[in-house]
Amino acid sequence: MHRLQAFREMRARVPQKAFNWLVSFNSSRCIHSLPFATVNVEEISGSQPAEVHNLVQGKWTGSSKWNTILDPLNGESFIKVAEIDETGIQPFVESLSKCPKHGLHNPFKEPERYLMLGDVSVKAAHMLSQPKVSDFFTRLIQRVSPKSYQQALGEVFVTRKFLENFCGDQVRFLARSFAVPGNHLGQQSHGFRWPYGPVSVEALVTIITPFNFPLEIPLLQLMGALYMGNKPVLKVDSKVSIVMEQMLRLLHDCGLPVEDVDFINADGKTMNKLLLEANPRMTLFTGSSRVADKLAVDLKGRIKLEDAGFDWKILGPDVKEVDYIAWVCDQDAYACSGQKCSAQSMLFMHENWSKSSLLRQMNDLAARRKLEDLTVGPVLTVVTEYKDNQIPMVLDALERMHAHLTAAVVSNDQLFLQARLAEVIGKSVNGTTYAGLRARTTGAPQNHWFGPAGDPRGAGIGTPEAIKLVWSCHREIIYDFGPLPQKWETPAST
Amino acid sequence: MHRLQAFREMRARVPQKAFNWLVSFNSSRCIHSLPFATVNVEEISGSQPAEVHNLVQGKWTGSSKWNTILDPLNGESFIKVAEIDETGIQPFVESLSKCPKHGLHNPFKEPERYLMLGDVSVKAAHMLSQPKVSDFFTRLIQRVSPKSYQQALGEVFVTRKFLENFCGDQVRFLARSFAVPGNHLGQQSHGFRWPYGPVSVEALVTIITPFNFPLEIPLLQLMGALYMGNKPVLKVDSKVSIVMEQMLRLLHDCGLPVEDVDFINADGKTMNKLLLEANPRMTLFTGSSRVADKLAVDLKGRIKLEDAGFDWKILGPDVKEVDYIAWVCDQDAYACSGQKCSAQSMLFMHENWSKSSLLRQMNDLAARRKLEDLTVGPVLTVVTEYKDNQIPMVLDALERMHAHLTAAVVSNDQLFLQARLAEVIGKSVNGTTYAGLRARTTGAPQNHWFGPAGDPRGAGIGTPEAIKLVWSCHREIIYDFGPLPQKWETPAST
Amino acid sequence: MHRLQAFREMRARVPQKAFNWLVSFNSSRCIHSLPFATVNVEEISGSQPAEVHNLVQGKWTGSSKWNTILDPLNGESFIKVAEIDETGIQPFVESLSKCPKHGLHNPFKEPERYLMLGDVSVKAAHMLSQPKVSDFFTRLIQRVSPKSYQQALGEVFVTRKFLENFCGDQVRFLARSFAVPGNHLGQQSHGFRWPYGPVSVEALVTIITPFNFPLEIPLLQLMGALYMGNKPVLKVDSKVSIVMEQMLRLLHDCGLPVEDVDFINADGKTMNKLLLEANPRMTLFTGSSRVADKLAVDLKGRIKLEDAGFDWKILGPDVKEVDYIAWVCDQDAYACSGQKCSAQSMLFMHENWSKSSLLRQMNDLAARRKLEDLTVGPVLTVVTEYKDNQIPMVLDALERMHAHLTAAVVSNDQLFLQARLAEVIGKSVNGTTYAGLRARTTGAPQNHWFGPAGDPRGAGIGTPEAIKLVWSCHREIIYDFGPLPQKWETPAST
Amino acid sequence: MHRLQAFREMRARVPQKAFNWLVSFNSSRCIHSLPFATVNVEEISGSQPAEVHNLVQGKWTGSSKWNTILDPLNGESFIKVAEIDETGIQPFVESLSKCPKHGLHNPFKEPERYLMLGDVSVKAAHMLSQPKVSDFFTRLIQRVSPKSYQQALGEVFVTRKFLENFCGDQVRFLARSFAVPGNHLGQQSHGFRWPYGPVSVEALVTIITPFNFPLEIPLLQLMGALYMGNKPVLKVDSKVSIVMEQMLRLLHDCGLPVEDVDFINADGKTMNKLLLEANPRMTLFTGSSRVADKLAVDLKGRIKLEDAGFDWKILGPDVKEVDYIAWVCDQDAYACSGQKCSAQSMLFMHENWSKSSLLRQMNDLAARRKLEDLTVGPVLTVVTEYKDNQIPMVLDALERMHAHLTAAVVSNDQLFLQARLAEVIGKSVNGTTYAGLRARTTGAPQNHWFGPAGDPRGAGIGTPEAIKLVWSCHREIIYDFGPLPQKWETPAST
Repeated sequence: MHRLQAFREMRARVPQKAFNWLVSFNSSRCIHSLPFATVNVEEISGSQPAEVHNLVQGKWTGSSKWNTILDPLNGESFIKVAEIDETGIQPFVESLSKCPKHGLHNPFKEPERYLMLGDVSVKAAHMLSQPKVSDFFTRLIQRVSPKSYQQALGEVFVTRKFLENFCGDQVRFLARSFAVPGNHLGQQSHGFRWPYGPVSVEALVTIITPFNFPLEIPLLQLMGALYMGNKPVLKVDSKVSIVMEQMLRLLHDCGLPVEDVDFINADGKTMNKLLLEANPRMTLFTGSSRVADKLAVDLKGRIKLEDAGFDWKILGPDVKEVDYIAWVCDQDAYACSGQKCSAQSMLFMHENWSKSSLLRQMNDLAARRKLEDLTVGPVLTVVTEYKDNQIPMVLDALERMHAHLTAAVVSNDQLFLQARLAEVIGKSVNGTTYAGLRARTTGAPQNHWFGPAGDPRGAGIGTPEAIKLVWSCHREIIYDFGPLPQKWETPAST
Repeated sequence: MHRLQAFREMRARVPQKAFNWLVSFNSSRCIHSLPFATVNVEEISGSQPAEVHNLVQGKWTGSSKWNTILDPLNGESFIKVAEIDETGIQPFVESLSKCPKHGLHNPFKEPERYLMLGDVSVKAAHMLSQPKVSDFFTRLIQRVSPKSYQQALGEVFVTRKFLENFCGDQVRFLARSFAVPGNHLGQQSHGFRWPYGPVSVEALVTIITPFNFPLEIPLLQLMGALYMGNKPVLKVDSKVSIVMEQMLRLLHDCGLPVEDVDFINADGKTMNKLLLEANPRMTLFTGSSRVADKLAVDLKGRIKLEDAGFDWKILGPDVKEVDYIAWVCDQDAYACSGQKCSAQSMLFMHENWSKSSLLRQMNDLAARRKLEDLTVGPVLTVVTEYKDNQIPMVLDALERMHAHLTAAVVSNDQLFLQARLAEVIGKSVNGTTYAGLRARTTGAPQNHWFGPAGDPRGAGIGTPEAIKLVWSCHREIIYDFGPLPQKWETPAST
Repeated sequence: MHRLQAFREMRARVPQKAFNWLVSFNSSRCIHSLPFATVNVEEISGSQPAEVHNLVQGKWTGSSKWNTILDPLNGESFIKVAEIDETGIQPFVESLSKCPKHGLHNPFKEPERYLMLGDVSVKAAHMLSQPKVSDFFTRLIQRVSPKSYQQALGEVFVTRKFLENFCGDQVRFLARSFAVPGNHLGQQSHGFRWPYGPVSVEALVTIITPFNFPLEIPLLQLMGALYMGNKPVLKVDSKVSIVMEQMLRLLHDCGLPVEDVDFINADGKTMNKLLLEANPRMTLFTGSSRVADKLAVDLKGRIKLEDAGFDWKILGPDVKEVDYIAWVCDQDAYACSGQKCSAQSMLFMHENWSKSSLLRQMNDLAARRKLEDLTVGPVLTVVTEYKDNQIPMVLDALERMHAHLTAAVVSNDQLFLQARLAEVIGKSVNGTTYAGLRARTTGAPQNHWFGPAGDPRGAGIGTPEAIKLVWSCHREIIYDFGPLPQKWETPAST
Repeated sequence: MHRLQAFREMRARVPQKAFNWLVSFNSSRCIHSLPFATVNVEEISGSQPAEVHNLVQGKWTGSSKWNTILDPLNGESFIKVAEIDETGIQPFVESLSKCPKHGLHNPFKEPERYLMLGDVSVKAAHMLSQPKVSDFFTRLIQRVSPKSYQQALGEVFVTRKFLENFCGDQVRFLARSFAVPGNHLGQQSHGFRWPYGPVSVEALVTIITPFNFPLEIPLLQLMGALYMGNKPVLKVDSKVSIVMEQMLRLLHDCGLPVEDVDFINADGKTMNKLLLEANPRMTLFTGSSRVADKLAVDLKGRIKLEDAGFDWKILGPDVKEVDYIAWVCDQDAYACSGQKCSAQSMLFMHENWSKSSLLRQMNDLAARRKLEDLTVGPVLTVVTEYKDNQIPMVLDALERMHAHLTAAVVSNDQLFLQARLAEVIGKSVNGTTYAGLRARTTGAPQNHWFGPAGDPRGAGIGTPEAIKLVWSCHREIIYDFGPLPQKWETPAST
């Protein structure tokens, strides 16, 4: 969900020299200069497999059972993941249980932790701004998730920008409360954002779903959970969990206490058992709607979801900037090799476009993608044309769909915008909706809300609003110190 | 959850003459002067039973099956409720289905409705300020719910104050959005509060639960749902549904379109079937935790809950104002004849109080309650004493409880407040917590949040924050109209 | 600044019968049924002149000196105003001095007053919704300010809507504060909105300025001052002060304590002396820039201003809806007979419009205005045409102007909106700017901010934001109760 | 106004090794490794005087007139300041004039600048976190302002924390706007924070005033002005202007465009002339009330002020933690050698304290201060005792004072806090008020508002709220794109 544009802007700002260095740096070795890292990203291979551990109660642990991950490029067994099975969950249950319902911190408990987490964010953001650290995670993402270097770098960039947003006092500013005068002297009501305490962050970040952001999605949710005072257990799909395993080591290096986050590699059945035994107060789940619905039932609704959406795009009647539109369509459909899986994309094209070169150009753009640089994946976008008077039918079709993540209305046409944009927006519920000539459906950055709408279980990611809504609840404290009214006497019962 | 204090303040303001009139008015007949009402509250009886209808698709309907409600005072069959069974739910399913997911209104659709609802609130608040209307609902509540006149009047008063809070432009102010500058010219991101569309408000307001507010709880949630653009179907326990049935008629009289709300009398099984078939986007449930958990499973977590809480109170070491404390304890325990059922109340009393007259006074106060004026009900409060150094044990006990609605810490003692208040607040999660000499656990008004904390499914009631969080979700619209950067060229794929 | 549209909407909702009654009511007498009123609006005349008194320290007082106001329609001396001269200001100085700097109320002092003012708003709004009260003020405005009945009624309507916005708890919600966790246990910082204490509201509402809203402007500012805890002395131009004098009597009737507001009729020199002697902590001045600048110097900048603006309008290149545009231009220029005085209006018209019937239609519309129904006044609008490439020159011209109240950009043209609207908005500073086909420069309602921008002294009117910014200041309270760190020892001096 | 506590916390977190290095580093040379710096802080002396230049239109310039600053420790002429006289102001007037009223950026103009300033903050914060940069500014402050190393280091620390608060997207988040649905389809009203355009930041930071924070005060206000889109001209007292001159060079090194800020060294008369000719839209003045009042008159109130306050402290009746209280009193009175000048401090002490060792201890603490380490300055604090029943008299005395910056109520006594704290807070208007056992009157950090209350001209510093209120104004944009109502016809004139 990072923004390609952000990367390009970044690139525009980075002096060319640094950029060249950054690129050439890719093939060099850096393990000695990254004290937090336990792997050398370029050397992971069948002969030198990397190991991914678990973290519980402040200790990194292995396991009797090692899951083997195959290199997506050559099929070698290049990563060994220490997986916990049902017999091994007890330490994780205990660890979660140690965190009380009122959390690791809240406005009345250990406020120093807000400052500590602000400091961790300062340091981690600075680390990610170092070219060799940035390259380390970019390449690590590439090793497990078939993306281009630029797409993976974009993910690291968005993660860094997110961390910059919560430097200094900004973590404690998330815990800002409000108060209203009461009915009489000595009474005031205060509304606080309260943590849930023990929570779970589960990101089924896999290769062929819209969620193939193995660093950005888990990290943003994890930090949000921590900022608000929760103690999270984190589970990421084992295929890509090496990225967050290394990131946790970086965070520890930046001052995050090792007991603050548990990290588990496990299959779905084991994780389910853990959730049922440890009974976290809240579970954030990123993954498919089917699994999400099952989890919602198992956890009796104590869950927030970011599931896949049926992402649609409408091209208005104004045929112009065809090069640009074709390129955005291509990126929305193919970038990250399956950021959008085939069944989840629909393009409504005004009939005017049929006379243009758009489809041919989209074809050409798709054709230039190639496996070697990881810019291609198996994707199909359904294209439907509509006539001027068929917008209501299009809206009707959209109303009948089930999931509503992102959407785009691409047009700068006067009549269309006026008569149709408000209508399309006012009559749809997609959580993150782009409108205008530069509209797109992928590549959300850290500066605006990203998440589904229309579902009370829906979770946002990344912004201060998203963090507060997902990772804390309202608590009201009413001070009522008196004094009593003068000459108060016991009234009649009521 | 109304505030007795509020009533007493109101009474203090009402000229004595008006108040006498109001009281004497109780025994007079008023049906002819209340054009909205279909019942004469004083004449409902076994020989002149009242009828409660259903409302669907803008029409009041009867039923082939009439449920009979017994007068709690004399056991006569005094109300006939037209109950819908499973064969009759189709019109309700159709009615809900007519409301699209984007709601009856939203910031881009029929904004006039925000103003209309502001006008309805103005008129309804004014109606409730009329003594004969206020008396009508007060007495109607008393007929079905064993409360004193003052407790029932307090409920009407809080309802009126709530409506006053959303007069004029205040409904549209609930739909206030925010925007942040984007990355380049022509880009801005907007965060809106979006309705869920078809929703359900289910208030299992019954006689012996904490939820015996047959007007206040359903009305506040219903209006909140409407304000944000949803179309609710409302179900209240048949024993008390006559109150909301008459209230809906008042709202229609004040300009609420008859199609905006459906109203159904049905048993739990039928309602469950309706929910599964109509599939509302959100269900607000007020009632017991057991039913709530089942609903959460049936609705896959698309639910917000206001369930009963285990409400505790801690008396600090400073023994003073014993008369006042005893009276508040008595009200918290007994007012409304079971606002707090026996198993749900626990009083932690510092050992210093054992030497005081508190327990004796509580006993005396309980003894003066009598059935005739409906000030008594079967209630038991467990009293536990603690010593100075046992606060951690008390907190530990509280941590192990399951539901967390309200709590109170009663003290103005210096050492206790300093050393203990922050600790008790910082180490507990009750949603609505009162602290200070005048702390209580019952009687919440409309001006502060009331609801549980510590549960992602938890719902608040009444305040602007509660309405926005419960009845709307975040939707992000990103405008990106361009222009394109000058000399833009198609970049390499990523 | 009221909205004509609002009136028309209101009319659309009022049943025709009620409206006829309302109109026929105009000629009837109502003094006996308006208990607060001391004048009979229809009978004020040379032979039965009305009297306007002063209010100080809770008492209505006359004066040895009576100023005579001439009926604008026939020149008769129809109102006698008791004017205070320099020898009479002492009671006003004393009255203001009685109010401490921390105000009549604040979040820590007499919070009951927030509720009292919410109740006053409920009652006053309801009074103004009564047709005979509404008619009374409409006609009273007409008697002193040459407007049409509908324009004057619109002013009453906006005033009522404003009062509806601050019913119930909404006054105390204006005093909402926020808090942020501190550096250690026991520390929290709180930001409050604090009153100024004694303040002055001076509305030089006169016949031929943009400020001829003798009810709306002073009432909205006065209530805002009260809501936040200030004690205002109010001065309105004597020519129209009868309107607010009667309104104050209505407010008293609705429960406003008589000591809360002082009301003075005086000339500018006397008022200046009063301000210098009483030294109010804040003065809100509505009137000409020239007087405003002098006041700013006299009061050393302790002032907020709503001065006249140079209001411009740009018509885009898209010539359409000419009837509508002509009518809005006519209303913006002429409605209220000088809402916009001649030198303050400029119309930039794209050259395309020169071929249209716009100017002729504007001429026709102006011609149909007539003195009898008070729809006409001496107004001149300067019209300038511009070519496609001259927008930068237009913006340059606007940049060099001095006051920036309202502005409008009328267009729905695609290219213009895209290329120009953001440019015009981004490169101008007018406080209240309308954009789109229905843009206008007059008729602001109560639901959005109205006021100048680009000046730190600028004041807004009517909205919650405006009230908070104009009538209160930030105050920060930091609680730091400890405890001390364990084993604290005196450190070295620094 | 920095917080000593902050420094001590920082020290607690810094590894001891780093701290030793930092201390020993003081005597080493670092000019070669600080590329932005043009002076070597340890070598500035009579024989190697430093030069301070002006910055205008992107160019550093000297002057024909050099002002000589004497070393406060030995009286040597150790700094030469290029002072502009009245003949030299023209380039500054021109530079300010180049900035339009709508600013360098706003939500509709060059939004990229928000991101650029977020990046500058990231880099500058990181620079200040480098020990040698931090030491450079700490020592530079010490060279011109007689403070201890720790006090000066604290100022650098607060400055860094402030910059951390506005990293990443946090600058654009300051420009967050809101919107409310309009009356009909196509209408929405938006409230923006708009810049003033050309502005002036004048910090008369001198040696013996409360404003001797030559880095923190000007930097925080300067960045606030920039963040919101203004172009500031900065003037700091020549005696200390070398600190901000070097800081500007650091900011340029971090990416701040050289044209964004002008920097002038001039006497008051020249600055006054510049302000009158360049006519900045807003002037922020930090300095004495006398100069502030004159400026308010000269600039016709277009000014925000942070003037000296009469800072008082009340010690409650509970005599305890005497060591701590004595130390805080000593720091509040003497730290920074005159942060509080003699006439501006008053201590109200409950008579109980007279029996304690407090006064003796304060005496002892004052005695241990010495000139060599710059911990002493000529200060006198007036001490007054009061009896239990004299709080109203104390409040009365405070009410009659003129300026209200900070205040403290030191007590944890139950009765006092309950009966008196709300009273003292509710009946006073000091802008930044501390309450509790650890209350103080000096040492405000960056995380809460600091500024006077009770004056409409009052300015806060440092927090998001302060930046928005001081450096931007409200602008309302109402979109009203239609469509027109169907079958619209020209209505009658009104």
